[in-house]
Amino acid sequence: MGAEAVTAMHGLLILSRHADAYLRLIQAADLPGLSITATSDPEEGAIFGRDCDIVFGEPSLVSSVLPHIPGLHWVQSTWAGVEPLLDPSLRRDYVLTNARDVFGGLMSEYVFAYLLAHERRILLRHAAQAVGRWDNTPPGTLRGKKIGLMGVGSIGACLARTARHFGMTVKGYTRVSETCTDVDAYYHGTDLMAFAADLDYMVSVLPNTADTRRIVDAAVLAALPTRAVFVNIGRGNAVDEAALAEALQAGRIAGAVLDVFQEEPLPPGHILWHTPNVRITSHTAAPSFPEDIVRIFLGNYRRLLQGAALRYRVDFERGY
Amino acid sequence: MGAEAVTAMHGLLILSRHADAYLRLIQAADLPGLSITATSDPEEGAIFGRDCDIVFGEPSLVSSVLPHIPGLHWVQSTWAGVEPLLDPSLRRDYVLTNARDVFGGLMSEYVFAYLLAHERRILLRHAAQAVGRWDNTPPGTLRGKKIGLMGVGSIGACLARTARHFGMTVKGYTRVSETCTDVDAYYHGTDLMAFAADLDYMVSVLPNTADTRRIVDAAVLAALPTRAVFVNIGRGNAVDEAALAEALQAGRIAGAVLDVFQEEPLPPGHILWHTPNVRITSHTAAPSFPEDIVRIFLGNYRRLLQGAALRYRVDFERGY
Repeated sequence: MGAEAVTAMHGLLILSRHADAYLRLIQAADLPGLSITATSDPEEGAIFGRDCDIVFGEPSLVSSVLPHIPGLHWVQSTWAGVEPLLDPSLRRDYVLTNARDVFGGLMSEYVFAYLLAHERRILLRHAAQAVGRWDNTPPGTLRGKKIGLMGVGSIGACLARTARHFGMTVKGYTRVSETCTDVDAYYHGTDLMAFAADLDYMVSVLPNTADTRRIVDAAVLAALPTRAVFVNIGRGNAVDEAALAEALQAGRIAGAVLDVFQEEPLPPGHILWHTPNVRITSHTAAPSFPEDIVRIFLGNYRRLLQGAALRYRVDFERGY
Repeated sequence: MGAEAVTAMHGLLILSRHADAYLRLIQAADLPGLSITATSDPEEGAIFGRDCDIVFGEPSLVSSVLPHIPGLHWVQSTWAGVEPLLDPSLRRDYVLTNARDVFGGLMSEYVFAYLLAHERRILLRHAAQAVGRWDNTPPGTLRGKKIGLMGVGSIGACLARTARHFGMTVKGYTRVSETCTDVDAYYHGTDLMAFAADLDYMVSVLPNTADTRRIVDAAVLAALPTRAVFVNIGRGNAVDEAALAEALQAGRIAGAVLDVFQEEPLPPGHILWHTPNVRITSHTAAPSFPEDIVRIFLGNYRRLLQGAALRYRVDFERGY
């Protein structure tokens, strides 16, 4: 049985649509010195949170309890994207960490599912089968094709590794970093047109920041070859959606695979629902599996107890 | 200009539906000591071939010219599968080589296109989009899933490597070989039920031999979990198609992705055209790209001139 439990040193508020699952997983870890409350209701969270110093949850819920937690020290986001916490009117006197490194594998499965489906004509073969037609049109191949990654952080690095596995050439467009060795050529700043000029696939992994807003505009889309497919797994704000719909309707690019949008859910009647050669996947590219997210929280909580720096800290100014 | 060309030591007959493309590529290599004729017509081939010692082409065409080429020494098949040349009534007094090692990458793209499409619900999301529905049902993932490869030659090894890349566990069913290090566990002979028992995906890469005929029968299909998807990229004869249709109709397995069939093209009205959860891809998994196949021929021709053993020799008895 051991000694009596130490007095709680930290108070944790779990504020999440999946509060029950997260509570179960975190309780199972039997963390020392932690008292836990959990809810999916922000109003209840504002009350529970009064004596807490740690909040774990979805940024969209956490933003509303920030004013009610005087002793707040640390927020662990269950998402990669933390826009709701970056509003300049909100406090920034705490450590914000997000979820990273767990999405790369899932994002890679998503992107290559759609790239391979495109090369392999999966939807066209399915239509042929429906009418009993033996469709032996040769497929394409990823081997030798060019992929351009806008953003090469931990997710971009996973995509680059899978692209290399399939024999593709990899171009990377980043603000400054050139750390991923699976990228064959890096581009920055005003090189965006040269980056786009010979791509078969352009994939945006960009977060939503002032620098990335509408970065994929009519000019970038016009720079892409007509055979190119655009994939967006970053944030919807990186794209000029009207210009994208126009480029697709005019056949100036071959297709778009869109997981994220300026407004989500994508509103009924939005032009992208029925723009030719668009695939809409409703923000499902990389779900936050509770086991993965809790692993990040547990690691960071242990670092907190040891007085070490927390991992995946968000820079409020930079926005990611 | 150099010396006058040496007298032709070898005569090559190209007999292929793609005779023009192959002729161009082989002529461009400017091989020493070789006179070349090319046709897509077997009757013309029988005449052109009289003075030849080498034939390059599709086994289904080559089989009919075999009796007309007295000096035949070597046949290079443009395909991996050489069944038409294995008929016991045909001569076997020549060296038969097939196309290998060029299909692994394409097969891997094909198999993982369909595995990822299954996990990512690509067809279901497409149907949701058609009616403007925001379908955010979470996807599945390949990570942690089990794939079973029936046949682990050069193609199986490529599949195993891609499966490992996506974090899958790999089981291999082979006659004897255990050479691929990306396979976690090997099974042989009568272990087939144990091999199948816990698979998420079972992929047949088996050639058509006496040992493999109807090896995927009702008992094997019953041994698979109900969540399992069966993929056939080997030969149609490895499968009891009636038993497969029955297993799918009864929901005893989750799906089948079929590139090959006992009869090809799959006859109109065949039950598999409309069996639930079947994807038919009309023998397109790994097309023979002329550049790849010619590279094999050129390598082997150089070996022939050097008196070295030819690569990818087929054992007539074993059948591959």
